[in-house]
Amino acid sequence: MGSFARKEHQFLAELGLAPRNPGSFACGAWGGSGPVVIAEVVEASAREYEEGMRACYDAAKTWMAIPAPKRGEIVRQIGDALRAKLHHLGRLVSLEMGKILPEGIGEVQEIIDMCDYAVGLSRQLNGSIIPSERPNHMMMEVWNPLGVVGVITAFNFPCAVLGWNACIALVCGNCVVWKGAPTTPLITIAMTKIVASVLERNNLPGSIFTAFCGGADIGQAISLDTRIPLVSFTGSTKVGLMVQQQVNARFGKCLLELSGNNAIIVMDDADIQLAVRSVLFAAVGTAGQRCTTCRRLLLHESIYRTFLDQLVEVYKQVRIGDPLENVRSTMEASCL
Amino acid sequence: MGSFARKEHQFLAELGLAPRNPGSFACGAWGGSGPVVIAEVVEASAREYEEGMRACYDAAKTWMAIPAPKRGEIVRQIGDALRAKLHHLGRLVSLEMGKILPEGIGEVQEIIDMCDYAVGLSRQLNGSIIPSERPNHMMMEVWNPLGVVGVITAFNFPCAVLGWNACIALVCGNCVVWKGAPTTPLITIAMTKIVASVLERNNLPGSIFTAFCGGADIGQAISLDTRIPLVSFTGSTKVGLMVQQQVNARFGKCLLELSGNNAIIVMDDADIQLAVRSVLFAAVGTAGQRCTTCRRLLLHESIYRTFLDQLVEVYKQVRIGDPLENVRSTMEASCL
Amino acid sequence: MGSFARKEHQFLAELGLAPRNPGSFACGAWGGSGPVVIAEVVEASAREYEEGMRACYDAAKTWMAIPAPKRGEIVRQIGDALRAKLHHLGRLVSLEMGKILPEGIGEVQEIIDMCDYAVGLSRQLNGSIIPSERPNHMMMEVWNPLGVVGVITAFNFPCAVLGWNACIALVCGNCVVWKGAPTTPLITIAMTKIVASVLERNNLPGSIFTAFCGGADIGQAISLDTRIPLVSFTGSTKVGLMVQQQVNARFGKCLLELSGNNAIIVMDDADIQLAVRSVLFAAVGTAGQRCTTCRRLLLHESIYRTFLDQLVEVYKQVRIGDPLENVRSTMEASCL
Amino acid sequence: MGSFARKEHQFLAELGLAPRNPGSFACGAWGGSGPVVIAEVVEASAREYEEGMRACYDAAKTWMAIPAPKRGEIVRQIGDALRAKLHHLGRLVSLEMGKILPEGIGEVQEIIDMCDYAVGLSRQLNGSIIPSERPNHMMMEVWNPLGVVGVITAFNFPCAVLGWNACIALVCGNCVVWKGAPTTPLITIAMTKIVASVLERNNLPGSIFTAFCGGADIGQAISLDTRIPLVSFTGSTKVGLMVQQQVNARFGKCLLELSGNNAIIVMDDADIQLAVRSVLFAAVGTAGQRCTTCRRLLLHESIYRTFLDQLVEVYKQVRIGDPLENVRSTMEASCL
Repeated sequence: MGSFARKEHQFLAELGLAPRNPGSFACGAWGGSGPVVIAEVVEASAREYEEGMRACYDAAKTWMAIPAPKRGEIVRQIGDALRAKLHHLGRLVSLEMGKILPEGIGEVQEIIDMCDYAVGLSRQLNGSIIPSERPNHMMMEVWNPLGVVGVITAFNFPCAVLGWNACIALVCGNCVVWKGAPTTPLITIAMTKIVASVLERNNLPGSIFTAFCGGADIGQAISLDTRIPLVSFTGSTKVGLMVQQQVNARFGKCLLELSGNNAIIVMDDADIQLAVRSVLFAAVGTAGQRCTTCRRLLLHESIYRTFLDQLVEVYKQVRIGDPLENVRSTMEASCL
Repeated sequence: MGSFARKEHQFLAELGLAPRNPGSFACGAWGGSGPVVIAEVVEASAREYEEGMRACYDAAKTWMAIPAPKRGEIVRQIGDALRAKLHHLGRLVSLEMGKILPEGIGEVQEIIDMCDYAVGLSRQLNGSIIPSERPNHMMMEVWNPLGVVGVITAFNFPCAVLGWNACIALVCGNCVVWKGAPTTPLITIAMTKIVASVLERNNLPGSIFTAFCGGADIGQAISLDTRIPLVSFTGSTKVGLMVQQQVNARFGKCLLELSGNNAIIVMDDADIQLAVRSVLFAAVGTAGQRCTTCRRLLLHESIYRTFLDQLVEVYKQVRIGDPLENVRSTMEASCL
Repeated sequence: MGSFARKEHQFLAELGLAPRNPGSFACGAWGGSGPVVIAEVVEASAREYEEGMRACYDAAKTWMAIPAPKRGEIVRQIGDALRAKLHHLGRLVSLEMGKILPEGIGEVQEIIDMCDYAVGLSRQLNGSIIPSERPNHMMMEVWNPLGVVGVITAFNFPCAVLGWNACIALVCGNCVVWKGAPTTPLITIAMTKIVASVLERNNLPGSIFTAFCGGADIGQAISLDTRIPLVSFTGSTKVGLMVQQQVNARFGKCLLELSGNNAIIVMDDADIQLAVRSVLFAAVGTAGQRCTTCRRLLLHESIYRTFLDQLVEVYKQVRIGDPLENVRSTMEASCL
Repeated sequence: MGSFARKEHQFLAELGLAPRNPGSFACGAWGGSGPVVIAEVVEASAREYEEGMRACYDAAKTWMAIPAPKRGEIVRQIGDALRAKLHHLGRLVSLEMGKILPEGIGEVQEIIDMCDYAVGLSRQLNGSIIPSERPNHMMMEVWNPLGVVGVITAFNFPCAVLGWNACIALVCGNCVVWKGAPTTPLITIAMTKIVASVLERNNLPGSIFTAFCGGADIGQAISLDTRIPLVSFTGSTKVGLMVQQQVNARFGKCLLELSGNNAIIVMDDADIQLAVRSVLFAAVGTAGQRCTTCRRLLLHESIYRTFLDQLVEVYKQVRIGDPLENVRSTMEASCL
């Protein structure tokens, strides 16, 4: 929309984004017939979820039969495709989520690193041959793919968390069904376009990587879906508990990455300058939207006044506004 | 020379090879003042070895201080650079060593795969924290780089064997000093140019990867050099034993990949057609120049005649000549 | 009582069992003020649970501070103490649970084997030192004890399942709170006496290993107890689900070993005699009370009649009655 | 002899030692027809070595066919047998080698700990199932026993070093041929009697553990023996190098534990008292006969005088004489 018209947002086109974007990549094709939630992203409907999941479940048979090192090669190509768009993707993370640009780029780099790591793993997914008590017998233990892994991510790390889960899931022989956060649909779409292009170039079913923009209804569909034996959820403790109860009730398994409530304790013999800078980054980094964000400060009374004065001072350097326009030097220095 | 003038050898220029090539990449620069052994490669002299090793030994301090994942990134770039030249390098292996083109390309692919594997390893070079019997104590075990690893390779796999050793050595924080086979200097030079370009692009000392074209004198210098705590040698059993004795005498360690003497036993209930094809590939593959080459055939008397007749028949399909001109269909089918 | 008077039950006294037994080993002492459920075992009351858990939770601080190899030494002594009573304990398993004697003894041997295995593990609970991307940094990952591990076991393997869980929990630095099945309290008591004697001989708090005879109320108390971060449950799928929901709701973790529904498929080219014997053992072994028990038989029509005839024949050899009196030769041969 | 008559040496009889002892346990029987070297131990002759090795080599076929966990059970029994004689064996180490009693007992404890550790390992000697690039293929890697492992130990740790090697070798499925130091034959004999009794009690060939008292001729026979693919040698650097050259020349492998030349550096801000005590233990412990013994002291000039004065003072507490009679309080405190 208006956003697209602005010169500084031309990079969005480089990522394959248009003023109006279908929010469901399912059955290897883009769809989206649900309500328009944010700007011009059309979220996935329940019918699209069902069709997409069916195709994803089918694609699992293809994907798990491909040798692990070949799956690693696909993930390597995904890493290279992300590398080629590193700065554009980083800007989009910044634009849509609100963290500063170095952090946006840093987050995309994280998923690239995960790709490299997973490529190496694809030749090391070793099973075991275990000695038995019975003569001339041995026990064999091999890792079999689960089929489809569900990944529900949060808005604060709209692509890195996908990477932690999807890169490993893919080399292990699992298809991925991804629901990104409802408030960061553009990064969901841009990421998915990149993965889809790699799958297409290798003549693989696009459904191996299925993605939905959507809200709680799609999330719940994943939680309840018996075709998804493992669900990774990142988000609030409250919702995480609900997801876990739903997934466990059908004997599925969960990976949860939930809330934190971190404190920093500063003693009287601390290096105050270092501590102040650390608190600033811990509290303001990622726009304060991080499970590891510092929320509480426990100060020794003897340094309480000095510390607070210095902290107020450095907070003044933090400018509020467009994360792409403002260069917050202290923050950038801290986060690099 | 004449070779370079031929149209079908234009790919050599793509690999940075010239009619006359200095055969020593040491101190990050090309040199070579020894005798001209093959065509126009100028081998390294003893003085060049000493200068190169000194620079390599110095570079080890730089390289081992770089975090392992960053070293992995360099190896990833080497893998990508090899990928870009896969077919040219494969042709050169074929041209210089004599194996057929699919095997030449396959060998280069092997070193590319090793790069991918080593990149993953660069984040997994874990030490251990071991429980102690003493209260409030623990034991820590970490992997420290050795410094410089010597790699002496044979003519039959002029680049894959380097890859097995160098990719792992590099991510582990070791510099590499490589002596390729005297009969395959062009592949030594082409490979080294590729690695050197990656190091240069990353502002790293070229001496991290030091290479020499040369004969037994350079090999012996490596064996005796106390600056090289680990020597990997691939070649004949006879020379391997000598290298080992020399390296061990100075408390260095050896990795040996020596000769074989493999037999295939064919019983009376075997699938003769499959067995014949297997023997053909096992005996003729890599132009018969492989440690795992089949040298002996033990046939059950009841199938002896039939087997031999069929074997003679398939041998007729093997055409002798330029490995780049002749397409030996049976062999290619077997080796792919 | 009457049981104790019988000559063939004199071995019960060897295991420290009396006609009337308090069913709670908590705070390092025997108690039991709840209702008398089976014969003469006095189950634990809610108050006894609370007191016992409080002592167990306290003992955790002592136990986790003991070096892992020293904890291994305690588990080694437990293994030796069990070894000394192997045949008596095996008889008790047979008497109380109903499986035949060789299986009873085999089950006790399993926990002895687990002790040996855990002793070795106690020197291998290694953490990792992981390479970091930051120069001069490394990441350390160590295994910390959880504190108290809850173990709820089923009647069919009244001691082996405890062993799988408790041996590992103990060397890892965790205290154990155990609720045995309400129908096998004597084995719970006999096992606990053995462990308690080892702890006492080593001047360690008896609360490190806390045990309760009791029913669903004790089980639920464990599920809901926030002092128990990990609960291992073996039993029915229905109850397992409930336990899991309760434990997860307080962010605890579960290990579940639930029901099975195994079938054996016999094709037309099977070795019928071998298959018949396998089905017999699979269906009748452990008195048919095993998660891996064969419940369904899928027979190829061409062998259906023959198979059934033979199966009926071997079933006739299975005598019903006192597992200590009857020697069922076929079964014993199969299970050894 | 005279030694045996003394009351304080009655424990030797407890260890099965007599005034005159055959020094070769080979073919499962005691022999020894070589020269009498120390007191009354009759060393093994070349003929006895050959007969013993032949039987050991044969026994290897039996031993490697026994399931690893069953081999672990034998090693567990060896550990228990050593435990029963811990103090007697510790006294013998003290008497024959010269280290103080707590160190003698500590050394025997070390081999007991190794037994426990190896028992656990016997269920963890896992091979790997490695993903292959070829569809529907996997690679399997299993650990096969070598056959016979040679162990040549030094006088300063006459039984612990055996333990490090033999416990692991045995659970891995290897027979052991041991040559103890010529100056500590009684501990070689006492240890061997204990192992032999366990093998006998389990109806296993005594040749699984073959031991020789003898000198350089037996050591060289082991080095040159192609039936021994792995030789572990502990001793001087000079002899270690020779052993390695001989073993490698026949493509055998070596484990070497050779000399050291350790220094302690004391800076000006050190805790002098702690440093002095550390130096005392490091230099005088194990009667100064240890590869890790402190041989050199590098002192900062500012603490040089103080340090030396204190060191001379603590050295005065070290009494020279019979290690079983003298109680050297400082040393004992340090080494416990």
